[in-house]
Amino acid sequence: MPNQWIVVFRAICKHARHAALLQSIADTLEWDERTGMPIAAGDYRAEQVSTLRAMTHEHLTKPCYGEWLESASQAIGDQDPHSHEATTVRELLRDWKRNCRLPVDLVKRMSEATVKGQQIWDVARKADSFASFQPQLTEIVSLKREIGSLLADGGDAYGALVDEYEPGVSVKSLSEVFAELRGPLVHLVAKLQCSNKQPKVSLLQRQFPIDGQRKLSHYVAEAIGFDFTRGRLSETSHPFCTRLGPDDCRILSRYDGHWLPAGLYGTMHEAGHGMYEQGLPRDWYGLPPGSYTSLGIHESQSRLWENQVGRSKAFWTWLFPKAKEIFPAALSDCTVEDVHFAVNAVRPSLIRVEADEATYNLHVIIRFELERALIGGELVVGDLPGAWNDAYRDCLGIVSPTAADGVLQDVHWSAGLFGYFPTYTLGNLAAAQLFATAKQQIGTLDEQMSSGNFGELLAWLAANVHRFGRCLTGEEIVQKATQKPLSASPLLRSLETRYEQLFG
Amino acid sequence: MPNQWIVVFRAICKHARHAALLQSIADTLEWDERTGMPIAAGDYRAEQVSTLRAMTHEHLTKPCYGEWLESASQAIGDQDPHSHEATTVRELLRDWKRNCRLPVDLVKRMSEATVKGQQIWDVARKADSFASFQPQLTEIVSLKREIGSLLADGGDAYGALVDEYEPGVSVKSLSEVFAELRGPLVHLVAKLQCSNKQPKVSLLQRQFPIDGQRKLSHYVAEAIGFDFTRGRLSETSHPFCTRLGPDDCRILSRYDGHWLPAGLYGTMHEAGHGMYEQGLPRDWYGLPPGSYTSLGIHESQSRLWENQVGRSKAFWTWLFPKAKEIFPAALSDCTVEDVHFAVNAVRPSLIRVEADEATYNLHVIIRFELERALIGGELVVGDLPGAWNDAYRDCLGIVSPTAADGVLQDVHWSAGLFGYFPTYTLGNLAAAQLFATAKQQIGTLDEQMSSGNFGELLAWLAANVHRFGRCLTGEEIVQKATQKPLSASPLLRSLETRYEQLFG
Repeated sequence: MPNQWIVVFRAICKHARHAALLQSIADTLEWDERTGMPIAAGDYRAEQVSTLRAMTHEHLTKPCYGEWLESASQAIGDQDPHSHEATTVRELLRDWKRNCRLPVDLVKRMSEATVKGQQIWDVARKADSFASFQPQLTEIVSLKREIGSLLADGGDAYGALVDEYEPGVSVKSLSEVFAELRGPLVHLVAKLQCSNKQPKVSLLQRQFPIDGQRKLSHYVAEAIGFDFTRGRLSETSHPFCTRLGPDDCRILSRYDGHWLPAGLYGTMHEAGHGMYEQGLPRDWYGLPPGSYTSLGIHESQSRLWENQVGRSKAFWTWLFPKAKEIFPAALSDCTVEDVHFAVNAVRPSLIRVEADEATYNLHVIIRFELERALIGGELVVGDLPGAWNDAYRDCLGIVSPTAADGVLQDVHWSAGLFGYFPTYTLGNLAAAQLFATAKQQIGTLDEQMSSGNFGELLAWLAANVHRFGRCLTGEEIVQKATQKPLSASPLLRSLETRYEQLFG
Repeated sequence: MPNQWIVVFRAICKHARHAALLQSIADTLEWDERTGMPIAAGDYRAEQVSTLRAMTHEHLTKPCYGEWLESASQAIGDQDPHSHEATTVRELLRDWKRNCRLPVDLVKRMSEATVKGQQIWDVARKADSFASFQPQLTEIVSLKREIGSLLADGGDAYGALVDEYEPGVSVKSLSEVFAELRGPLVHLVAKLQCSNKQPKVSLLQRQFPIDGQRKLSHYVAEAIGFDFTRGRLSETSHPFCTRLGPDDCRILSRYDGHWLPAGLYGTMHEAGHGMYEQGLPRDWYGLPPGSYTSLGIHESQSRLWENQVGRSKAFWTWLFPKAKEIFPAALSDCTVEDVHFAVNAVRPSLIRVEADEATYNLHVIIRFELERALIGGELVVGDLPGAWNDAYRDCLGIVSPTAADGVLQDVHWSAGLFGYFPTYTLGNLAAAQLFATAKQQIGTLDEQMSSGNFGELLAWLAANVHRFGRCLTGEEIVQKATQKPLSASPLLRSLETRYEQLFG
């Protein structure tokens, strides 16, 4: 029996790895598409990618594969559920069942609705007209409710959608932790607006030649530990991170000649994602123990490097001389304090992707509440613009004069991504909680960072987060590493402490 | 019957196009591999590519596909053999039969021998030791003879190997045209060495900043007609051209900060290849009418732009002011005549890839004669180094002191590429012959080029070469366009005229 189990287990792994190989090829084509592919090449590229995706789908839905997974799952007995083997079988079976639960026809309708949805959204946003997007969004919400209900098997539809991105997290616990965060954040943001001490943000808008920014980004990514023998930094219009093989992680940044933070923090953010991917067990590439566990944990790694590290005084103590060397014209009359204060500016603003660290989570909480109500049926799409504006007035004290900069600003809903937004804030919360523990356990982290030494922090993250792959859920990782469930306090404390030092 | 023919024809096209799509994906991965892929990513990349190549092979050797081709071929009757439909069936059947003629085991042994061959060659070249390469080369030659004999079906083995790259060309005609070329070239090169007037080559070795070279290369490639909406110029260590879809042609160049011709002519050469690919009937992509007809014709397009255009006085009359603007420090004290003379320097040298336009073909003819003797059995591998040195003494008057810069300099034989070298010189001959006819028919080509207008020349090439795909062989294209069979005279005449003006 154990011998036979091994045979089946190996067949499962081989099958899943072949699917991962096909996926990785499609991902490579998509990376290429976003890094300078000739404009006329789009149609054929779409054909190449969809052929590979269809091959993958066909491969993963072969009946024999489901039978192997069922039989392996029954035979696994009382093995440690967090072992690589048990995780492989459990998670692949979970994926398989999920694939089987959704009728092919529904998946196809959803896919068509979102392709169309993104096109209509794009036009509607340019025309600043929610009305012309409303029918399509109504259709998408209705399909997502149907999908959520099927996945939830009678349970909460929105919860099932969140579970797609953040396995194991309940809407109840999300609501609780977001409620814990919302009030204090609103209060904090309002208070900072009244401070007499304000940063000189304009110094970050001086001229920062792109070539210098490339150099600085590469320098920082390498220093914090992104492994360039197993990865690469390129440029694109919408930065992202993608992994094309066990030793091939691509991060992409974007530079703005008159806004230093875009490129620098874009790179640190993507490098954080990249180091997580590089820290996953490479020999389990293509299988659950070698894959990221949730979007929240992924985002915790990017946010940790971007905000907890990149906006700290210690980090700037190290980087400032180098930045001044690269940009003598822009920074010669500044102090390290000026720059550190400027990158920590807080201003309520309309656009989520341009928001600062404090207000960002308010943007996310607004979307979480609205989409939960939409999927739950308490809010109809026609009332969404009004509800959006009310929420912005409540949380940030501002209202967008246009739909384009309001309810139409994000691509997510048009693409069917309901349940995705909360993972951004989960990531920020986990980043702060993990970083606080790391700092406590390492002891001299500030001193290390001040002298450009980030190795011990990365090793801590590798040991406490990266190495588990999908063997632990996001919640389990945070609990195990910090000995506490995820909560809002560490993030609030970290913001309050930092801002108090800066704004007085 | 005609209706049924259409059904079969469509099935054939669909089948072949799917194989082309898989190939194009593998080619994209290889392009990526050579343009900055992380070093550690090589193993997995090899797995991705070999999976795709195996899928393609499996797809192309399905028995039903062969049956469709046989039946379509019989049903095609007296259709014009150069029509797109007849060409599709004839050429795909040719490819199919070729694939079937070689036993799988032999293909596998050949593949293993050449993978090993290239590794051993690499080490042997670094160690400057022909002896350590000799056993493997002996094995490769023996396998190639076997393959050649099978493909020739009892006929001349070397001829069958040449036919792989240059369909329809006989070894006899190659020998004749090369013999026509060899004597006059040897004489011309010797004569130029004695001239009192010699170019100042050193001016091309001044400092030419890489960024400026990139700009110049892009400027020239765009001006001569490479379509950047359907293509892209990147950098790599060994320049090449590859097509990743109907509207996605990638050319790659390499820049040397102290040798202007490397980047400029590398780019023009690859852009010439690229414009041929861009001129093939795009709607027949993935099928013979949309594919290049032979390596010789491909090379004729690269050489035409590199040498016939790029080394002409008219071209430099146009480009010189721009080059001076980009490289004021390097070129301020030069005249257009100085630069034009310098890019036309002639010097017998040891290394083929660094050879000038006049001596290049002698390097190729040496290889053609040696490899023909090896495959024919008149020369044994053990005698190759001596024969190599004798040939260099004869043709170029120089002998390499090392095997590394002599018989071991090229990768081709270690990779099993016998019959490939002649296509380089066929390309040079065809380039000169086509260009002479184009010049005659266009009339004012020199005036057009002097003012940076290359559109009429490109249109002539598109109409007389590109648009035929595999509907015509290389020989047929040259005959139809120039009303003469391929001969050595146009190349010799073009070199003699240009050099007479320069060297006096």
